[in-house]
Amino acid sequence: MAKELTLAPDRCFEGDPKRKEIATYLHTQIRNLPLICPHGHVDPRVLADPDYSFGTPSDLFIVPDHYLFRMLYSQGVSLEALGVKNRNQPEQTERNSRRIWQTFADNYYLFRGTPSRLWLDQELYEIFGVRKKLNSLTAQSIYDQIAEKLAAPQFRPRALFDQFNIEVLATTDAATDTLEQHRAIQASGWRGRIIPTFRPDGIINLDAPDWRANIDKLSEVSGIEASNYNAFISAIEQRRTFFQQMGATATDHAARTPYTATLDTIDASLIYQRALKGDLSPADTERFTAHMLMEMARMSCDDGLVMQLHVGSSRNHNDVIFDHFGADKGADIPLQTEFTRNLRPMLNKFGNDRRFALLLFTLDETTYGRELAPLAGHYPAVKLGPPWWFFDSVNGMARFFDLVMETAGIYNTAGFNDDTRAFCSIPARHDVWRRACANWLAGMVVKGLVDVDDAEAMMIELAYGLAKRAYRL
Amino acid sequence: MAKELTLAPDRCFEGDPKRKEIATYLHTQIRNLPLICPHGHVDPRVLADPDYSFGTPSDLFIVPDHYLFRMLYSQGVSLEALGVKNRNQPEQTERNSRRIWQTFADNYYLFRGTPSRLWLDQELYEIFGVRKKLNSLTAQSIYDQIAEKLAAPQFRPRALFDQFNIEVLATTDAATDTLEQHRAIQASGWRGRIIPTFRPDGIINLDAPDWRANIDKLSEVSGIEASNYNAFISAIEQRRTFFQQMGATATDHAARTPYTATLDTIDASLIYQRALKGDLSPADTERFTAHMLMEMARMSCDDGLVMQLHVGSSRNHNDVIFDHFGADKGADIPLQTEFTRNLRPMLNKFGNDRRFALLLFTLDETTYGRELAPLAGHYPAVKLGPPWWFFDSVNGMARFFDLVMETAGIYNTAGFNDDTRAFCSIPARHDVWRRACANWLAGMVVKGLVDVDDAEAMMIELAYGLAKRAYRL
Amino acid sequence: MAKELTLAPDRCFEGDPKRKEIATYLHTQIRNLPLICPHGHVDPRVLADPDYSFGTPSDLFIVPDHYLFRMLYSQGVSLEALGVKNRNQPEQTERNSRRIWQTFADNYYLFRGTPSRLWLDQELYEIFGVRKKLNSLTAQSIYDQIAEKLAAPQFRPRALFDQFNIEVLATTDAATDTLEQHRAIQASGWRGRIIPTFRPDGIINLDAPDWRANIDKLSEVSGIEASNYNAFISAIEQRRTFFQQMGATATDHAARTPYTATLDTIDASLIYQRALKGDLSPADTERFTAHMLMEMARMSCDDGLVMQLHVGSSRNHNDVIFDHFGADKGADIPLQTEFTRNLRPMLNKFGNDRRFALLLFTLDETTYGRELAPLAGHYPAVKLGPPWWFFDSVNGMARFFDLVMETAGIYNTAGFNDDTRAFCSIPARHDVWRRACANWLAGMVVKGLVDVDDAEAMMIELAYGLAKRAYRL
Repeated sequence: MAKELTLAPDRCFEGDPKRKEIATYLHTQIRNLPLICPHGHVDPRVLADPDYSFGTPSDLFIVPDHYLFRMLYSQGVSLEALGVKNRNQPEQTERNSRRIWQTFADNYYLFRGTPSRLWLDQELYEIFGVRKKLNSLTAQSIYDQIAEKLAAPQFRPRALFDQFNIEVLATTDAATDTLEQHRAIQASGWRGRIIPTFRPDGIINLDAPDWRANIDKLSEVSGIEASNYNAFISAIEQRRTFFQQMGATATDHAARTPYTATLDTIDASLIYQRALKGDLSPADTERFTAHMLMEMARMSCDDGLVMQLHVGSSRNHNDVIFDHFGADKGADIPLQTEFTRNLRPMLNKFGNDRRFALLLFTLDETTYGRELAPLAGHYPAVKLGPPWWFFDSVNGMARFFDLVMETAGIYNTAGFNDDTRAFCSIPARHDVWRRACANWLAGMVVKGLVDVDDAEAMMIELAYGLAKRAYRL
Repeated sequence: MAKELTLAPDRCFEGDPKRKEIATYLHTQIRNLPLICPHGHVDPRVLADPDYSFGTPSDLFIVPDHYLFRMLYSQGVSLEALGVKNRNQPEQTERNSRRIWQTFADNYYLFRGTPSRLWLDQELYEIFGVRKKLNSLTAQSIYDQIAEKLAAPQFRPRALFDQFNIEVLATTDAATDTLEQHRAIQASGWRGRIIPTFRPDGIINLDAPDWRANIDKLSEVSGIEASNYNAFISAIEQRRTFFQQMGATATDHAARTPYTATLDTIDASLIYQRALKGDLSPADTERFTAHMLMEMARMSCDDGLVMQLHVGSSRNHNDVIFDHFGADKGADIPLQTEFTRNLRPMLNKFGNDRRFALLLFTLDETTYGRELAPLAGHYPAVKLGPPWWFFDSVNGMARFFDLVMETAGIYNTAGFNDDTRAFCSIPARHDVWRRACANWLAGMVVKGLVDVDDAEAMMIELAYGLAKRAYRL
Repeated sequence: MAKELTLAPDRCFEGDPKRKEIATYLHTQIRNLPLICPHGHVDPRVLADPDYSFGTPSDLFIVPDHYLFRMLYSQGVSLEALGVKNRNQPEQTERNSRRIWQTFADNYYLFRGTPSRLWLDQELYEIFGVRKKLNSLTAQSIYDQIAEKLAAPQFRPRALFDQFNIEVLATTDAATDTLEQHRAIQASGWRGRIIPTFRPDGIINLDAPDWRANIDKLSEVSGIEASNYNAFISAIEQRRTFFQQMGATATDHAARTPYTATLDTIDASLIYQRALKGDLSPADTERFTAHMLMEMARMSCDDGLVMQLHVGSSRNHNDVIFDHFGADKGADIPLQTEFTRNLRPMLNKFGNDRRFALLLFTLDETTYGRELAPLAGHYPAVKLGPPWWFFDSVNGMARFFDLVMETAGIYNTAGFNDDTRAFCSIPARHDVWRRACANWLAGMVVKGLVDVDDAEAMMIELAYGLAKRAYRL
């Protein structure tokens, strides 16, 4: 077994030497462009504290990353053994960081051919200088090597932020968040541009776990007592203004479906009252979310915040995992999704409004060519976000290009965002996207579908310009 | 920026030199075969008048082509600026053809990587002799060049028809059409074969915009007063016979879904009576269409007209656009489609009948491998039309070959049709299909899945034979 | 026309010489590994009788193979002409084996580019030494050649079993089968490992054609009078034990949908009683199957039999064919399928149980990336079977790798099974899989996504290890 870890300079590029050469040329043109990170889940705390440390290699890589531990869990490794806290039996959670790392390394072969492996190998190689493949035998020496680096000042998050050449990084924050961390970052005089994103799921989805508490929080932070529907709307508007003042350019919304519909104010008020009394039907919840998505679009027309819609996940599919470990533990499974009918009310009302920008994300790739590209290729307001979650991968990107671009054109897409909570994976994720773009464009050049000049212009847009404009940065 | 417009001789062919060489060989074998155009939307008026002129370059290329103006609209260009008539405010419509052309050229970069660009560049290059890339700077000189050509006698449609080497061209005509233009063509002594296609949507879909007026028209042109269901059926049969006498070999049907079901005559009569009185439920409409598709299949068994079924478009998705500009303005969005259950009644009744030929078209590519190929690979009556509308593209064709051919074989497909109203785009569209076929076949040769002899035989069928036989031409 | 039949040594491998070289290397590494055949439909009679003869070339190749005759039927050849027995008019069935073969050869061109052609050419070439392409002219001489071989002792099934290097072959057997043939094989002293698979569709699907008779049979063979629900469950458990004693390691279940739900015992008992009285509603049937799938999962936890679930076929779509020729005549058409919601009850109850193994098969490829890979990449119990039926093909496999592996990883898949009743096609089918794997892995090596060492380890798993472990062999 070869033990050396290498990164092929032409990785992600397909076989024909001529095509590889063109892809390499295109990639070289843009590889030093700054990273635009307009959507993600990095904890702002990481950048608020100038001395923040990532902890041990296991703390950094494994414990918080559901992409990684779900795969090991699927093969019979317990989450406890990976350091994920079982809230009912916390004492069963492995605390020895080296032992967690060893378990991970023992099973690292499971990731062969997956994007996790691609990202992780690149992080190990480029950020931490690792030159051996991670496996049972090399586990502890690689652990030492990473641990040593993490102790050094160049591995503080702000230093890495600069090294990664990030131009702007957006976090995702509850609508009720007071953005203390963002305030601290701004007050610190540090020049990194970290902006919040307004995510109101916890207050507009009436079945959100702590909805009632969130409403109290909303009243408190907005200074508007959200005791009736009108006040609730006012409080949301107030929070949007606050987020915008703190630098936000976008909102983000998660929903099971993209169903949109307008309620009249009386209906909306009645449902809101029932929600406050804890007396809701599932139909109430569904209709209210559909209505509030319309309201969010209306507000976006007014304040100019770009609206992101991430739909189609059946969250917490595995009750056992949810009961013991909580949300975001790799047990969210995609659902069939329908956009053409569901989005029609919203698009009829706001889709022709030049002030409105709606960025769509899906976990159902069958909608790429059938629904999303035709919608984006017609409505001025609609643009398509990059492949999301399970599809943020070499093949997932290739399918996205294949299915979307002929109908929508690249200019109705929103470039890349890494959508990650793993700060150190950001450069690798952007690099995979940029390489996948270069590979796709090179394929078109070789097929005589675009010339090199056009491919180069498209490459710059895909790597940098589209995201910046789509998010109004 | 390179300013020269070039057409790579090996365009659409993929990278490996050996594969490209085989593709080039296959393409060369068939490139001079005549074009079979068995389904499209060219206005027969264009060919009825021997002196017909296409007007200005903008009249020819932009104003009538919803593929083009929907893309510019999606990026914020108004339809009025592109010369599309706003029926509520006609005075806002740009009438200066040069200004329209300039706007189009300014935004031509939006089409990078799209089939529209591929077709248009080929038309500009091969038909109009353009050698510069269209952009803001070259717009007016290219306008001049096209305008000059259009004034010449070689650019009359009939001359182009011959130059394009079209063997037969089918138009699509309302069931109530008297086919005056076709009569004029036939009477003129010109030898071009232009045939009508019988499209009864306006009379069998009870919710068609002018249904009542269409029924009056039907009574008038057929000489059969369609005041009851039986007379309605007789009138349709009369029209089919007339179309067939005028050269038609096929019918064409658009429906939101492929739902088929037989009503008994009493039910059908009652619904028809309610329709005449304007007293319909949506369920009536749906059931009647399902029933009439069965009737159309029955008539096809009797008269031998090939039945085309185009399903799955949500027409006029954008109310604003429909209200101001009408239908076919780029605002039709595909829907999920189901064939296995929906077509079962029709196929059980007529699918084993050797007299019946049913050609299926879809906007939902997920049905290619799952439903359509298995149906075509079993029922004698069923054949699959080529990739349609959004999928009439290099990648769309590649996916069609990939998903359909292993199960259906090429002999259960219907070759190519261009489905276009843009007369000058016909050669480019057929050429893209032929190149995509050559590329696909070359890929199989390189993979050792077919030998060159078989590939050559398949190439001829795909380019010419399949369409001719499927449409009984 | 070239008349020679050749098999390219690098068939199924894609074009770039470097990629082909790597694929060839990987294929060479594993080409002599034994075949694991854990799921199929070979009649055990074939191997129970040491002197079993396959009959004529038409008996062997054509009459029993619905992949072949459905294609000819779709092009207007009657099933009778291919020797398929019309049970209403048996006298119309062609009995002349040479004439059947000639008809087949005359139409063999229809299979160009299909997996049937790939398998058959390889069988003809490698097993029967044919060196000419099958067509109208060569039909009879090839018939002679095959017939001569079939008469020789080396062409007895047991001799071929050894020559094919099959390590284990599982048949599929009704739950009520007494496994006489398996007993005979075991008693014969022959060392070939032939094991049964427990398939209870005929007793758990209450609308199965001979359900009542099957229950009587169940009572008889189990010695437990299945006159009530509890006894029915006990009888099933008894049969599972018997199958396991006879070597079975797996069960197999066919269902239209993967809907699972638990009934309480009273409901289950009442439905069972209604079924015995022939007084069922469709809802009863659906709920009972959903419940029995849960019961089967429970039993699998207890006895360790691997549970296979094949879903999504609309059986006997064509009534005419069913009435005249019966089931399995090429008229089964896939349906849209939904796993995320449907399997949730079963996976919540048993999906975390390490004793449980659930292998999923689909005819709806849209579920590969959206539902199946995420489920397999999370639940310890779930693994994915290889591409099934219409998708057991070069392109079908490529799509499977593309859509599944990045999310599930190869280790959550179950390797290959041939699922065939055509014994002589087994080596060709496994070879296509192995080549498709080698081609896929070589593509990843060329793209720098895995190194050659990892690719080699993955190749061995895909060709041999995964199937063996997934089926607990």
